[in-house]
Amino acid sequence: MPSPCAPLFVTFEGPEGSGKSTQVTLLRAALEKDGHEAVAVREPGDTAVGEAVRELLLNADVDLRPRTETLLFNAARAQLVDTVIRPALAAGRIVLCDRYADSTLAYQGFGLNQDPQTLEPLIRYATDGLMPDLRIYLDLDPARGLQRHAQAAASSSQRIWDRFHAQDLAFHRAVHAGYRALMQRQPAGWLVVDAQPPPAVIQRRIHASVLQALAAGQGNAS
Amino acid sequence: MPSPCAPLFVTFEGPEGSGKSTQVTLLRAALEKDGHEAVAVREPGDTAVGEAVRELLLNADVDLRPRTETLLFNAARAQLVDTVIRPALAAGRIVLCDRYADSTLAYQGFGLNQDPQTLEPLIRYATDGLMPDLRIYLDLDPARGLQRHAQAAASSSQRIWDRFHAQDLAFHRAVHAGYRALMQRQPAGWLVVDAQPPPAVIQRRIHASVLQALAAGQGNAS
Repeated sequence: MPSPCAPLFVTFEGPEGSGKSTQVTLLRAALEKDGHEAVAVREPGDTAVGEAVRELLLNADVDLRPRTETLLFNAARAQLVDTVIRPALAAGRIVLCDRYADSTLAYQGFGLNQDPQTLEPLIRYATDGLMPDLRIYLDLDPARGLQRHAQAAASSSQRIWDRFHAQDLAFHRAVHAGYRALMQRQPAGWLVVDAQPPPAVIQRRIHASVLQALAAGQGNAS
Repeated sequence: MPSPCAPLFVTFEGPEGSGKSTQVTLLRAALEKDGHEAVAVREPGDTAVGEAVRELLLNADVDLRPRTETLLFNAARAQLVDTVIRPALAAGRIVLCDRYADSTLAYQGFGLNQDPQTLEPLIRYATDGLMPDLRIYLDLDPARGLQRHAQAAASSSQRIWDRFHAQDLAFHRAVHAGYRALMQRQPAGWLVVDAQPPPAVIQRRIHASVLQALAAGQGNAS
């Protein structure tokens, strides 16, 4: 049986419909089968205040201004970092987070025309400086992502992200270009995975990279 | 009949129980009697998202971390600035706001041991740089304020600020010292009023100062 794992903080990024939550679930199961302890969280959510903020953000009727939306996401993030992510890393667990700071830069920054440089001090404050050890980007054309997202929503009772889904394709193209810009600016630490193959194929690629990061002792987030 | 007033942005600050909301109500009535148009708002609140955030913050059961609390207040503030305060100032109205950015510096900064310098970029972002033309500080010993606040709460069906009220006197003394430090650092633009005389006496002093600021054309906030 493997020894308790080194802590590692892994975030999942990408457009709507790219299959992030499926991959988080599959990776967590694979890591636990390997004998590691892994915690899966999503943004915003997983704390009482985070779920309340999620409700607010899900409600497309509330006309939120870009700065309001940005600050709400970051309020949920601060609580998640302090009460869930940092304690889990300190206990030697792997943390898998469905969206994190890069989503703010891509969506509220590039998508909503806010200068990413203005957002960086805010993100540093909200995260208390905790950055991921590995960022997994599920790459998909935004138009294809929206299509997949709509199909998934139609066949599910889960509430979808009306607020973002309601945005037009130009918004989602700006978000996509934003992610590209973030990866170009700081290429280290990103794993870009084509989101089109079957989930099991994607999962094997992600699983291998995470095991590699663990073996290399890349986790220093705690 | 006076001409439409020049816009002026007035904030009310001070400890719990110092009578801010009473003075906002009295000042608004006096200004309207003078023929001015005045809008009274409170933080957090007065927008759909602001009231939802207020509910979250009022609920002392939610264990909010200092950064979460700070970000939630500022989310409500951003929405209030964009959708209520700026439009009112642009329409030539006087805006009276019960708590604003200085409350974040005093309560979440000095009170919760967060460096005010760390909070300033966040506040600039949330307010979009909109600062008050006049800050009215209702000065009261924190112990006396808590006593008055408890008396008011006992005789009212209104929900009180459990979260802050539950803090001990040391917290409220730190907040008081914080306000003092803010006023020392930037004395211009503050009106410090003893909160102990009867409300009508306090009101006359505040009213006179606001009329003076209007006559001097100090409003430039729009």
